[in-house]
Amino acid sequence: MSVVMAVPAVADRMVNNPDWQAFAISSLLTLFAGGLLILTNRGRAVVLSVRQAFVLTTASWASIAAFGALPFTFAELDMSFTDALFESMSGITTTGSTVMTGLDQAPPGILLWRSLLQWMGGIGIIVVAVAILPMLRVGGMQIFRMESSDKSEKVMPRAAQIATGIAVVYIVLSVMCAGAYWAAGMSAFEAINHAMTTIATGGYSTSDLSVGLFDNATIDWVATGFMILGALPFVLYVQTVRGRISALLTDSQVQWFLVIVGSAVLVMALWLMTTRSVPMALAFRASSFNVVSIITGTGYSTSDFGQWGGFALAAFFLLMFIGGCAGSTSCGIKVFRFQVLYATAKVQIARLMQPHGVFIPYYNRQPISEEVTSSVMGFFFLFVIAFAMLALLLGLLGLDFLTCVSGAATAIANVGPGLGDVIGPAGNFKALPDGAKWVLSAGMLLGRLELFTVLILFVPAFWRG
Amino acid sequence: MSVVMAVPAVADRMVNNPDWQAFAISSLLTLFAGGLLILTNRGRAVVLSVRQAFVLTTASWASIAAFGALPFTFAELDMSFTDALFESMSGITTTGSTVMTGLDQAPPGILLWRSLLQWMGGIGIIVVAVAILPMLRVGGMQIFRMESSDKSEKVMPRAAQIATGIAVVYIVLSVMCAGAYWAAGMSAFEAINHAMTTIATGGYSTSDLSVGLFDNATIDWVATGFMILGALPFVLYVQTVRGRISALLTDSQVQWFLVIVGSAVLVMALWLMTTRSVPMALAFRASSFNVVSIITGTGYSTSDFGQWGGFALAAFFLLMFIGGCAGSTSCGIKVFRFQVLYATAKVQIARLMQPHGVFIPYYNRQPISEEVTSSVMGFFFLFVIAFAMLALLLGLLGLDFLTCVSGAATAIANVGPGLGDVIGPAGNFKALPDGAKWVLSAGMLLGRLELFTVLILFVPAFWRG
Repeated sequence: MSVVMAVPAVADRMVNNPDWQAFAISSLLTLFAGGLLILTNRGRAVVLSVRQAFVLTTASWASIAAFGALPFTFAELDMSFTDALFESMSGITTTGSTVMTGLDQAPPGILLWRSLLQWMGGIGIIVVAVAILPMLRVGGMQIFRMESSDKSEKVMPRAAQIATGIAVVYIVLSVMCAGAYWAAGMSAFEAINHAMTTIATGGYSTSDLSVGLFDNATIDWVATGFMILGALPFVLYVQTVRGRISALLTDSQVQWFLVIVGSAVLVMALWLMTTRSVPMALAFRASSFNVVSIITGTGYSTSDFGQWGGFALAAFFLLMFIGGCAGSTSCGIKVFRFQVLYATAKVQIARLMQPHGVFIPYYNRQPISEEVTSSVMGFFFLFVIAFAMLALLLGLLGLDFLTCVSGAATAIANVGPGLGDVIGPAGNFKALPDGAKWVLSAGMLLGRLELFTVLILFVPAFWRG
Repeated sequence: MSVVMAVPAVADRMVNNPDWQAFAISSLLTLFAGGLLILTNRGRAVVLSVRQAFVLTTASWASIAAFGALPFTFAELDMSFTDALFESMSGITTTGSTVMTGLDQAPPGILLWRSLLQWMGGIGIIVVAVAILPMLRVGGMQIFRMESSDKSEKVMPRAAQIATGIAVVYIVLSVMCAGAYWAAGMSAFEAINHAMTTIATGGYSTSDLSVGLFDNATIDWVATGFMILGALPFVLYVQTVRGRISALLTDSQVQWFLVIVGSAVLVMALWLMTTRSVPMALAFRASSFNVVSIITGTGYSTSDFGQWGGFALAAFFLLMFIGGCAGSTSCGIKVFRFQVLYATAKVQIARLMQPHGVFIPYYNRQPISEEVTSSVMGFFFLFVIAFAMLALLLGLLGLDFLTCVSGAATAIANVGPGLGDVIGPAGNFKALPDGAKWVLSAGMLLGRLELFTVLILFVPAFWRG
């Protein structure tokens, strides 16, 4: 992380912006803290118990957010620590809610840092989702455990091995995305920043107007395409490259995701055409971009969909919860959980008709174990409860109904913008009271680490024995 | 039902209102249809298969709503069939959403008929919940199956036997409630009507201002008390009367319900005192009345809680989903399901820490079978999905966000008022487009019959073989 901080330092130094010192100091502080940790733990075998893996995952995400906030506090932004942590947490969790305005005039360093936070958060969460959560059996993620790893509790070597393959794909996709943006008309700097936050389905932009600044159909479609790519399971890309060409297309999670996105885009486009008299090409462009931006949890905006009427608001509100595929950079409840829940509900209806029949739910042509079913259902329940609690807390802090419910949803599902005038696509999180920013930051961390990873730390029994 | 229709007929005849003929004709039509059904099915053994029980439950609820709508169409109200069916469905499902205005000037017959619909709906749903749903294993209701009935598929005799005990309690509570209202200052007519809709947790009133008309603390507290009594499991009253004095107090569902209500009342009262400067006595009175009215799904109002701020709206929105206890007249997801979900989530967190440990969830000091757990979770998932679908449909019909989401919630949870200016406590459902009224009517039926009972009829396999 210290090394990554050097990038914005160099960028700001090149344009002679004094902020380069903020990044340099942050980099040194991070290096010092990281160096201490490395030195004090040197020589120990890197074998983690399940319990240590839980603590490490949550603690590293929280501390990366804290160190990531340093440049925001040191830079000449006049930013409170609350705002800095919010911005950093929103970055590293690839949420994309921002408290900053005047991005168009901001120095390159701070813009790069925001993009880099999301880019690191994106690759980080893929590795966690692929290598760590399945091992920890969090929220049904054990469905993605690979056969070879079933009995092992040695988390780290596997993580490193898988990370390499995924990192290559991640970098290649980012470079392709940057190239496409550049070819479509962005400047090189804009293209690089947006590519990082597109693949990470993060949503930070270099402009207050987000991607709407460019008002360019090609850019919108490039963004739409790469947001979808960022929301597919990265392990399948690796498999595809290694020769299983059909890996992506035959995966039922990918199929469901594309069908959900396609249906939502179609309905929303028809809605825009019939009730808002938007011409067809523009309707499909706006619908695709915004539906994909919300369902993948990216959070770019090209238009204020707050003006699209009650149906659009309700639809975007619900799409936030769905999210993309597990093992991608996207967030929310995730498509595979809806598949498991749907399969289970189907089995239950069959059981109602034949109480003594034996019915088994399937996922991706494999039977789902009872353990996975109940993990997924438990996750769904906790997700709804956590959403409700966040909304109530925001309410107690004085926010209006739409800001409460959409703020809670956008935080826990790591989307970015909420709905309404305050935090909607045309709004900004700066206006919120500090308490609300802390609640939302906590919600982002909770959602990003799939609830259980964080909540388990609050169970007294976890720390016993 | 034909006999019950004679009551408003007599009432209107006594005040010489021509509407008495509407009730008389409706009564005759209902008698004719019912008579035909009785005659054509005469002599057959009353032994229902599981499949027949599903069809009968849904079909009788739907047809009672349809016949209940007749007086509304025939009376001098100038009501469309859509409005009449909405009003009747809202009555028989004890929802309490209304399309009628000018209640204060309405003839006694129509007011009585609205109250009677809710009163019949209330006792009807208790019997269904106690005698039929557990047998059909709907949404975890099998947890309430009584030992003796485990193997039996003879639904009807049991239903009749249980119904008698419950009916006595129901009538006694209604009479007590009417007496209390009358003593507190209502007229006899108002007391009788409100007693019927209080015990049924229905919420129809004889005034457009609902219970707010009286502006009487005693009446508010009587209503609060009897709404709570209506939301407790009626089987426990029968057990208490039969000598198990502690039945009510030791039941964990009752305990949870009272704790939830108590906490919500306390927080809401503090909110009113601190942010709205309401004096303490008034704050607790308003908070108790409205929290209880919403969580039990009654839907009376004394004040427009739309003016209480974002927290109150968010809290009332979430309280709608909770509902009362299973086996009562109340509605929503119900407290026992939250208990089962909570117990299951707890077990899952324990399993995360000790993957090979054996943990069993408990309900009311009994272990919960895997079948019940997954039924409850399936119910929770379907409830959320059904809510989302209703909200989207309402959105497509052109309603605003708050009306969409609160309308869907209030219909499926059988509460009554929604939130916002249109359908909030100070609004009325009349202004909605006809399509929305049909969607809401379907939602009420779906929610009242615990989803599965209705949804199973749409599964092709149900009708096969």
